[in-house]
Amino acid sequence: MSTSQPTQPSHNQLDTKAQAWSALFSEPMSDLVKRYTSSVFFDKRLWQADIAGSLAHAEMLAAQGIIAPEDQAAIERGMAQISQEIESGQFEWKLDLEDVHLNIEARLTQLVGDAGKRLHTGRSRNDQVATDVRLWLRSEIDLIGGLLTELQKALVEVAAKNIDVILPGFTHLQVAQPVSFAHHLLAYVEMFARDAERMADVRKRVNLLPLGSAALAGTTYPLDRERVARSLGMEGVCQNSLDAVSDRDFAIEFTAAASLCMVHISRLSEELIIWMSQNFGFIKIADRFTTGSSIMPQKKNPDVPELARGKTGRVVGHLMGLITLMKGQPLAYNKDNQEDKEPLFDTVDTLKDTLRIFAEMVGGQVNPTTGAKEGGITVNAPAMQEAAKKGYATATDLADYLVKKGLPFRDAHETVAHAVKAATTHACDLSELPLTVLQGFHPSIEKDVYDCLSLHGSLNARNTLGGTAPAQVRTQIARHQARLG
Amino acid sequence: MSTSQPTQPSHNQLDTKAQAWSALFSEPMSDLVKRYTSSVFFDKRLWQADIAGSLAHAEMLAAQGIIAPEDQAAIERGMAQISQEIESGQFEWKLDLEDVHLNIEARLTQLVGDAGKRLHTGRSRNDQVATDVRLWLRSEIDLIGGLLTELQKALVEVAAKNIDVILPGFTHLQVAQPVSFAHHLLAYVEMFARDAERMADVRKRVNLLPLGSAALAGTTYPLDRERVARSLGMEGVCQNSLDAVSDRDFAIEFTAAASLCMVHISRLSEELIIWMSQNFGFIKIADRFTTGSSIMPQKKNPDVPELARGKTGRVVGHLMGLITLMKGQPLAYNKDNQEDKEPLFDTVDTLKDTLRIFAEMVGGQVNPTTGAKEGGITVNAPAMQEAAKKGYATATDLADYLVKKGLPFRDAHETVAHAVKAATTHACDLSELPLTVLQGFHPSIEKDVYDCLSLHGSLNARNTLGGTAPAQVRTQIARHQARLG
Amino acid sequence: MSTSQPTQPSHNQLDTKAQAWSALFSEPMSDLVKRYTSSVFFDKRLWQADIAGSLAHAEMLAAQGIIAPEDQAAIERGMAQISQEIESGQFEWKLDLEDVHLNIEARLTQLVGDAGKRLHTGRSRNDQVATDVRLWLRSEIDLIGGLLTELQKALVEVAAKNIDVILPGFTHLQVAQPVSFAHHLLAYVEMFARDAERMADVRKRVNLLPLGSAALAGTTYPLDRERVARSLGMEGVCQNSLDAVSDRDFAIEFTAAASLCMVHISRLSEELIIWMSQNFGFIKIADRFTTGSSIMPQKKNPDVPELARGKTGRVVGHLMGLITLMKGQPLAYNKDNQEDKEPLFDTVDTLKDTLRIFAEMVGGQVNPTTGAKEGGITVNAPAMQEAAKKGYATATDLADYLVKKGLPFRDAHETVAHAVKAATTHACDLSELPLTVLQGFHPSIEKDVYDCLSLHGSLNARNTLGGTAPAQVRTQIARHQARLG
Amino acid sequence: MSTSQPTQPSHNQLDTKAQAWSALFSEPMSDLVKRYTSSVFFDKRLWQADIAGSLAHAEMLAAQGIIAPEDQAAIERGMAQISQEIESGQFEWKLDLEDVHLNIEARLTQLVGDAGKRLHTGRSRNDQVATDVRLWLRSEIDLIGGLLTELQKALVEVAAKNIDVILPGFTHLQVAQPVSFAHHLLAYVEMFARDAERMADVRKRVNLLPLGSAALAGTTYPLDRERVARSLGMEGVCQNSLDAVSDRDFAIEFTAAASLCMVHISRLSEELIIWMSQNFGFIKIADRFTTGSSIMPQKKNPDVPELARGKTGRVVGHLMGLITLMKGQPLAYNKDNQEDKEPLFDTVDTLKDTLRIFAEMVGGQVNPTTGAKEGGITVNAPAMQEAAKKGYATATDLADYLVKKGLPFRDAHETVAHAVKAATTHACDLSELPLTVLQGFHPSIEKDVYDCLSLHGSLNARNTLGGTAPAQVRTQIARHQARLG
Repeated sequence: MSTSQPTQPSHNQLDTKAQAWSALFSEPMSDLVKRYTSSVFFDKRLWQADIAGSLAHAEMLAAQGIIAPEDQAAIERGMAQISQEIESGQFEWKLDLEDVHLNIEARLTQLVGDAGKRLHTGRSRNDQVATDVRLWLRSEIDLIGGLLTELQKALVEVAAKNIDVILPGFTHLQVAQPVSFAHHLLAYVEMFARDAERMADVRKRVNLLPLGSAALAGTTYPLDRERVARSLGMEGVCQNSLDAVSDRDFAIEFTAAASLCMVHISRLSEELIIWMSQNFGFIKIADRFTTGSSIMPQKKNPDVPELARGKTGRVVGHLMGLITLMKGQPLAYNKDNQEDKEPLFDTVDTLKDTLRIFAEMVGGQVNPTTGAKEGGITVNAPAMQEAAKKGYATATDLADYLVKKGLPFRDAHETVAHAVKAATTHACDLSELPLTVLQGFHPSIEKDVYDCLSLHGSLNARNTLGGTAPAQVRTQIARHQARLG
Repeated sequence: MSTSQPTQPSHNQLDTKAQAWSALFSEPMSDLVKRYTSSVFFDKRLWQADIAGSLAHAEMLAAQGIIAPEDQAAIERGMAQISQEIESGQFEWKLDLEDVHLNIEARLTQLVGDAGKRLHTGRSRNDQVATDVRLWLRSEIDLIGGLLTELQKALVEVAAKNIDVILPGFTHLQVAQPVSFAHHLLAYVEMFARDAERMADVRKRVNLLPLGSAALAGTTYPLDRERVARSLGMEGVCQNSLDAVSDRDFAIEFTAAASLCMVHISRLSEELIIWMSQNFGFIKIADRFTTGSSIMPQKKNPDVPELARGKTGRVVGHLMGLITLMKGQPLAYNKDNQEDKEPLFDTVDTLKDTLRIFAEMVGGQVNPTTGAKEGGITVNAPAMQEAAKKGYATATDLADYLVKKGLPFRDAHETVAHAVKAATTHACDLSELPLTVLQGFHPSIEKDVYDCLSLHGSLNARNTLGGTAPAQVRTQIARHQARLG
Repeated sequence: MSTSQPTQPSHNQLDTKAQAWSALFSEPMSDLVKRYTSSVFFDKRLWQADIAGSLAHAEMLAAQGIIAPEDQAAIERGMAQISQEIESGQFEWKLDLEDVHLNIEARLTQLVGDAGKRLHTGRSRNDQVATDVRLWLRSEIDLIGGLLTELQKALVEVAAKNIDVILPGFTHLQVAQPVSFAHHLLAYVEMFARDAERMADVRKRVNLLPLGSAALAGTTYPLDRERVARSLGMEGVCQNSLDAVSDRDFAIEFTAAASLCMVHISRLSEELIIWMSQNFGFIKIADRFTTGSSIMPQKKNPDVPELARGKTGRVVGHLMGLITLMKGQPLAYNKDNQEDKEPLFDTVDTLKDTLRIFAEMVGGQVNPTTGAKEGGITVNAPAMQEAAKKGYATATDLADYLVKKGLPFRDAHETVAHAVKAATTHACDLSELPLTVLQGFHPSIEKDVYDCLSLHGSLNARNTLGGTAPAQVRTQIARHQARLG
Repeated sequence: MSTSQPTQPSHNQLDTKAQAWSALFSEPMSDLVKRYTSSVFFDKRLWQADIAGSLAHAEMLAAQGIIAPEDQAAIERGMAQISQEIESGQFEWKLDLEDVHLNIEARLTQLVGDAGKRLHTGRSRNDQVATDVRLWLRSEIDLIGGLLTELQKALVEVAAKNIDVILPGFTHLQVAQPVSFAHHLLAYVEMFARDAERMADVRKRVNLLPLGSAALAGTTYPLDRERVARSLGMEGVCQNSLDAVSDRDFAIEFTAAASLCMVHISRLSEELIIWMSQNFGFIKIADRFTTGSSIMPQKKNPDVPELARGKTGRVVGHLMGLITLMKGQPLAYNKDNQEDKEPLFDTVDTLKDTLRIFAEMVGGQVNPTTGAKEGGITVNAPAMQEAAKKGYATATDLADYLVKKGLPFRDAHETVAHAVKAATTHACDLSELPLTVLQGFHPSIEKDVYDCLSLHGSLNARNTLGGTAPAQVRTQIARHQARLG
């Protein structure tokens, strides 16, 4: 089986793309076609994955006696040099060689001769590119996991400092009930925790090996695919060669998870923007996350949250693009699939940049001199509390008070509506209505009603699992701190 | 804490919607507004989940002493009657009562008086609707899981009968290499297996309890939310009330998983349609999945796969709609969220119908008389084999043959390209070129080359894990049969 | 050519769908397949267009001597009865007959015998359905045009009453410069005017006749297609039969225009919601466009704008669905196309309802007793003006003042930034800084600076075409009133 | 009003971005934030539009006496140099200066001093960027219009050579009726003609001037906006400043039109791919539009049509991204809008490249030596004709024959179904059934039936406007040639 006996040196037909295709082709590609069909200027970012995959493949080929040990050694030597060339910026990427795979293979053959030509034994670009993308995406998912943890930690830190700060909780952007500002921030921690969980689920399905499926049908060489999977740290092997080379579920699934994460970012951004408007004035963010105006000298605009909100569209657009791409494709590999990369790459970049910048914008950054965090969100607690006093935020508490006095909830609800109407007429809060007036709505009302009509009374009363009472919030913060490490 | 002492009977202000809102409102809703804002004509399908959630809530309220045992009993009695009324079609759904929740609660209060008015203690429609949708979706995911199993079984059954049938494997819709038809079908089994896995992942995040989050901030009653979760078979409790009432991740995540499943269906459909075209003629599907033409008397059109391919757009559209819906919403609940239901419901319906019809179209249905399956795909094996002979499907095998003779793969590839060019000129297959001609391309070629140039030789040679060799395919079929039960 | 001589009465094979397809089919359709492939329960709304198209077709067939005058008369008589049956609700729509076309044709044949069977001469359902949808959509576009006019008028009316009301103009939701509230409303008039223009452009491409293209290739009968186009009020005839039956551009183009209109609605909704929040308090909308809460007795939620914002997602989802539907379809008609209807219908319904409700919500409705409009937006001018005083809204005016004194704009901009910084430190507005302090920033500042630092001074100064000065706004209102009639 | 008297030279605070914002900002931007918020590395492609807009603005400022003639002259001189620097690649684009506008303005001020600082008088980046994008897009639309003409011409040329070539017309990818291959190609001409019409409609709404709207409210300088519009060749002026700076309808509308065009490309691609598959073998495309395989030496894959089909997803994704971007944005300008550029730019690039490559792939390119076109689609007429004989393509003709003998169409349809069934049993075409057998289905059938059962007879018979008869096709080709010039 070993093919190590040297053959006569041969020319390297990979040097240009048209030659790579073989003698069948009667005319060279035009420059326009080259540019249209080539991918090297975006897929070169896969180079580390490509080399890692090739090395694992070569190691297995040698272990199985398909290539000689000397060939494997030559491939390793060549790849080490190529890695060094790419890292140092000396590697010359050629459009003519279409993609990252042919660029590296052609250079390898230049460097090590026939051993380089043996590397492609038992594989095809179809399984090679699927392997590369999966290896690359796996490492990006791990980075994203880390960034999601950082962002959650930043939110938990700010929450921990604002447990007793009262924010008007909104539904329909109308004042609803007072909530702890910490509680509000922890809602986002839940969202990003789900995002992390989804990313972990996606990772399971990313981390499987297509290599060895060759073009579409498997290969005639006695490959040990599970050996390659193990050496690449993959959890298993794609079980069907046709599926392995044509499947892009993992890219769509990842982009869907990224879209959801960006939706959460867009919701948080919307709130930051509203909170920073002069009519709210609830928070400030550090100057470096804002920009000014070329015409209005007084402006500090929340550019980062606005851009992040806008970038949600970008990622969602990529998701739609990827789904449209795959819809209705027959098996197995079609060139359409090459269009999976740019949206996937841009999704990863956008998500990583956004998570990193949000962690710093919310939580601040470590001052290298003092070691303390500086520059996160600045909270204007008095403005929040003032706003919570508008809109009869404790009306539900009055209804609950009446229920505890024996009224069915629906009747209590109706009774309080009358009280709110009266307070509106008097332009005062419920807590400012005299006891006698309140008793006019229901005789069971007593002096202790004022306890439940205060913001803090209302807050403390919501003391069940998941509620906004400071006691609950403290428990949640402790849980998150333990979980996030 | 118990509030069981009866209060005087009160009128039922829930009887019309305007009254439900309370005394604050000075004018009734116009009919147009009612129609625009009401959801009862689509959300009534949640009735079973709504009642199940209410019963679990009432049971817990009683266990915690928040309502009296008699109230709980009355609620159970009333709900039993309501269930019976809905099932029998006697229940009168009222537009004025806006949604399924108010319709059922109003009827309950008609039936059992103040006990009905006590049911809403410690909850809000915000957490109630989130709970209902999750309960409903959980059961639909379970049904979808079953349908995915049925479709996989149907594919495996047809595969098991077609292991040795040779299909031209395509890449770029050009003949690439011969594959087993069974192997091709098993690629779809892999896809639907991933869909099932994704659905199981989604289910984990669906099966959590929002109830007890009330409007947005939790509640002042000493609820035992974990008790409710247990009695509803849920895996846990949403840990943050603001998130619990505003989160629709689960709907988006489900619809994303459904979109991927429909993409797989659309790919299979595309292939069925191509295979049924007269120029391919690879398969037939039973007449009842086709329709004719109002003008062309000879037509039998593959309507079902075409419609399924088209319905992919529908589900993807729903995904886009849901993401757009949530983008940029501030916390907590906003009325926008009501728009989650119709796309979610239609996604579930479309996916279930499609999976069911595909299982039957592929695998046939059981003849109740004979117990045998009838009417699935009819395979035209000779047509497939004939097509596999076009396009030099065994050219790779010749290259591999040369590699085994010592040529580096790239040189072998180039050599075969010359051989293909010659065969094209002679308008014959590679296997029809005389040995002397073949030896002209490389002297190492010997008589045994013809073994690897035959379709069956090529097929059998791809005998590594995941490859198309019948031995591999048999192993995969056995694995799937064991897995699918 | 005339075929009027009576043949013997024949049975009506259209009575069930399986029979419609012809003798070729060996088995009936299952119920699931019927439900999956039938469209009658949504396409029956095309009945008027279907009958109008058939009558025009029959009139031409008779004029060309293809059918006898008696046949045409019988068809007209039958269709008159069918119209009456449908309008009165007596018509029995049958799932077995698949769609609106076969339902009506079958009933016609029941009523008038062989004349009914002659109606389908020279046409196919492929060109028939394309014609029906175009006719229907044309009339819906006209209705939408009217609704867009109504909404623009409502906005102009409210604008006309609020020319001198000062609103803080925002960029980045930060106070930027004072604007007239009327000017702000007129921005939406521009948007809806563009929507109307786009709808008119779409209409041109909708209003062309596919009929006569038959299945895909034209027909063997001497049809006069231009006669049919004229009698249906269409602007021309589709020039290529293959394109005519497979084109759905018009549906996509319409839905894209509708999506843009909904984006405008969503932007207006976002502003209404923010303006109604207690921290802004700029406006109120009539109670009937709001709803309350089942738990919080004090709530009045802006349900209509929120739902409208949410429904944007719905329409955008339909656009995505329709594009996905058409992507990659080969010519000519494929069954996928049947999936065009539900998204198109729902887009039309959603857009019409939304426009109607917004016209009324913004502008109010006519009180039938007094003839006056009542119940539109209530403007809180003092709150708007108060808010405009925050955020140094006249800083640009100070910079412009300095430019007029000779400073280059960039230097003036920088100088004002220092002034704003000082005012922030003193917690006062620019207009509250003493002249001596202002002169400290630049010696050219004189007493007249205070004119340009007032809100009204700033507003009046922006008196160029398209600017916010009341004089400009009046001109624009007059232009719109003239335009809208 | 003139401000021409020189002030003392001032430092150029635009040299870095943080300085541009004014003295208000207390900390510099971090590199991550700079990268996240800057646009210069993609918006620099607007440089020509930016300079054109600035020159028109300066000319008007001078004409209105707002700046001195010497300032205008200095600006023109500076801009000439900047143009030269950019064209020659010497211009140094700085990330610190955020965008194309500040980069150019800063360089201008370096070159010409205070005159450069006066350029921004009466404008803001908000109206400037809107103007730039509109100017740029207008010229791109004109280029796209030209490319659409080229592609239509290429299709018409190929059509003109293939009028009598018979292709099986498909519906549902099943053989339906014979059509002229030219007729089929002309269907795409209709589609691309509609695309051109839509682009022209979009252009009307693109070609309006926002400049002079300043930040959002207009400006205090006596601008003559209509003068600027005229000098830039624009059709009018945006009439509302708030709308002018925040409107991105034109970008969405353009991308929607581009998406439809790509849908047409994807449909044509799908057909080219199917036609090139070995089982069809209807056409070949030139080698330079195909690529080979790294593993299968025999492959020639239709990469260009596949990629084009895939790129449809990309453009549709951009459309969805842009709509999501704008959904729910309050007035006026928000930073989200910066995200409009990359999808718009990529849409333009993708569409232009695709149209250009398709025109050449379909129609060939001019051989510079011979002046003849070479290398377009190669048509295999015998294969098409052979395929048209399958599937009883003339069954409708037989039905029409019977109608002309007096049968109602529905009865004729049923009769032919029986004939097809018989032919299927005998495994022959309808035209191969003996006359006596045919007469068994209906006694009126005579010897002349065979004329209508031939492919050419069927083709010629469809001789009404828009039909496939060669006479009609010739008329259409002449119409298109006249139209396209």
